[in-house]
Amino acid sequence: MALTITAHETLDDAIQLTWSDGRESRFHHVWLRDNCPTSRHAETWERVDDVLAYDPEARAIEVALSAAGEVSVTWNDGHRSCFDGDWLRRHCYCEAARRERCLAPVTWAGGPGAGPPRAAHDAIMESDAGLLGFLEILRDRGCCVVDGMPDDPKAGEALAKRIAYLRETNFGVDFTVVSKPNPNNNAYTALELPAHTDLANREMPPGVQFLHCLVSEAPGGESVLVDGFHAVEVLREKDPAAFELLSSVPFDYRFHDTEWDVRWRAPVIGLDADGALREIRYNNALREPLNVSPELVKPVYRALRALVAVIRDPANEVRFRLAAGEMLVFHNRRVLHGRAAFDPNGGARELHGCYVDIDEMMSRIRVLGGENLLA
Amino acid sequence: MALTITAHETLDDAIQLTWSDGRESRFHHVWLRDNCPTSRHAETWERVDDVLAYDPEARAIEVALSAAGEVSVTWNDGHRSCFDGDWLRRHCYCEAARRERCLAPVTWAGGPGAGPPRAAHDAIMESDAGLLGFLEILRDRGCCVVDGMPDDPKAGEALAKRIAYLRETNFGVDFTVVSKPNPNNNAYTALELPAHTDLANREMPPGVQFLHCLVSEAPGGESVLVDGFHAVEVLREKDPAAFELLSSVPFDYRFHDTEWDVRWRAPVIGLDADGALREIRYNNALREPLNVSPELVKPVYRALRALVAVIRDPANEVRFRLAAGEMLVFHNRRVLHGRAAFDPNGGARELHGCYVDIDEMMSRIRVLGGENLLA
Repeated sequence: MALTITAHETLDDAIQLTWSDGRESRFHHVWLRDNCPTSRHAETWERVDDVLAYDPEARAIEVALSAAGEVSVTWNDGHRSCFDGDWLRRHCYCEAARRERCLAPVTWAGGPGAGPPRAAHDAIMESDAGLLGFLEILRDRGCCVVDGMPDDPKAGEALAKRIAYLRETNFGVDFTVVSKPNPNNNAYTALELPAHTDLANREMPPGVQFLHCLVSEAPGGESVLVDGFHAVEVLREKDPAAFELLSSVPFDYRFHDTEWDVRWRAPVIGLDADGALREIRYNNALREPLNVSPELVKPVYRALRALVAVIRDPANEVRFRLAAGEMLVFHNRRVLHGRAAFDPNGGARELHGCYVDIDEMMSRIRVLGGENLLA
Repeated sequence: MALTITAHETLDDAIQLTWSDGRESRFHHVWLRDNCPTSRHAETWERVDDVLAYDPEARAIEVALSAAGEVSVTWNDGHRSCFDGDWLRRHCYCEAARRERCLAPVTWAGGPGAGPPRAAHDAIMESDAGLLGFLEILRDRGCCVVDGMPDDPKAGEALAKRIAYLRETNFGVDFTVVSKPNPNNNAYTALELPAHTDLANREMPPGVQFLHCLVSEAPGGESVLVDGFHAVEVLREKDPAAFELLSSVPFDYRFHDTEWDVRWRAPVIGLDADGALREIRYNNALREPLNVSPELVKPVYRALRALVAVIRDPANEVRFRLAAGEMLVFHNRRVLHGRAAFDPNGGARELHGCYVDIDEMMSRIRVLGGENLLA
């Protein structure tokens, strides 16, 4: 349903539009002048003029509506701007409009019987609708198990590339998770891996992780998933001081072997500039000695124990056995993953992995038409 | 010079060591217990035990020093920990030690006659010392021009790969900057590009940019560099309120064509959790309509104009003509780059570009031995 503009008013420093659903949008003169369509390149649609290209005190002296829903503004310096009404509505910055544009994740707990959402390999590979449905699950719930994977070590990568190119790391473009001699990483042992996010030692850890199970014969090795966004909301409710510390005090993380020494320092709970949850960064294996002001040492350890207790609470864990022919896919910066210890002498266990970043996932969702917020 | 421990004292919740240079290091019991070497895997040296694996109230009841500089701690639960003295000193978290471990960038202004630092292609390619010297210039000053590049479109990529694998983006693993028909980006026109950072529309814009000049015959097209860290320090001095707004209020950036729609929202001035400058993110071409609380609109525009005026001040610009056979390399998230308009009918202009991220650059510096802060 197209909205129409039912009234307009020119204020001292803004124009106010009233829409057919009753919403009132106020656009400051400076905002309108800055967004005049003439300031953009005709082919790239990128901006050419910047904020020094116009008089910031320019005032709209006349506003007119066309039958086609365009808003024409005449400025006191003679310039004219013509805005599309739908475009203005989509970019309204009143508090209600800004709230409506926020996509909230669907957080989840766990417990006995809980399992991850599922999607089918062939549907993802064969149609854009299948791919989009899968990506919306990942975006909203942060994880998905893909069934019916071909018995081919390249099948996971082929599916990931339906989204975009892969994110390379010091472990390569893709990697094989098996118990190895002389491991450079605890993942390459048969040890339990408590729930963690991968590569917390990087400024931007990889976004989406793909773990295709090719062989699952070794006793043990059950998969564990924990929604980190749920866990930190539980923490915020129970222990707001711990949440505050873990979202402001940085931890150091490091991976090093003979070829690499990659380190980053950031809080466990990453918030964006609007205060929303952006990422969880927790990898005990890579955690370096705490390097904070002495008076924070005991409170920060206390806060970390409180969070780890929530993460380890079985009520927050989804536990399941990943079978050969299945691929676990998850948002590595939201959903913590782990595995039980396994017995490498009791049978083989082999996973193939790769990563695609969040920017690429979100771009693919937008291009496939699943999101229509700021077209 | 190896430091020795000259005294030790067991306090209520910490042990205190005094070193031969007079420094006193206080390590909380919980910090020591958390960092007991027995909590790590013998081969990967990654942590196995986490913060729930020990009693957080454990107390050191006996501390002994060995002649070899080791510090042995006996805990009230019977556990014993043995720490290397040098390791403890490197991880001391008193305020003085924490300050000493911060690497400050060497910021710079510009003005007539100012030029970028330089390095030689062959030295970088032929020796680790040459590579390390070049990387230290990039780390500290944020830019460098490499002379003596072979006349080969792959030469820039070959040099970048001395550091690590490349960062792929929607523009590919590498890209060619020429004036094109039907451009999807202002870089692919002959327009002036005012100083900007690339791909501000990504969660983590590429770190180090390589621009190898193969042909430079078109009139115009001079290169411009501005140290963004210098610019925002100038802003902080002149207009602290503008600095505060630009480091806290997010801007939206977006690139879209028929294949991609990549968006991110973050402040222009990115600070780390310790309050230090982490990145500058400013690309007017990709800047979307401001989407902030209405009362912030006018102050944020005012702040952005103040910053752009500093960036455009010729006293802060380094301007030079990049010649064929030279490669401009810069920290894309610190140093803004631009070019004057050029005349595509007056001759050819062709640059080949690629990116390597900051994590990989810093890792290479550490592995080559140029940094020795937390060995």
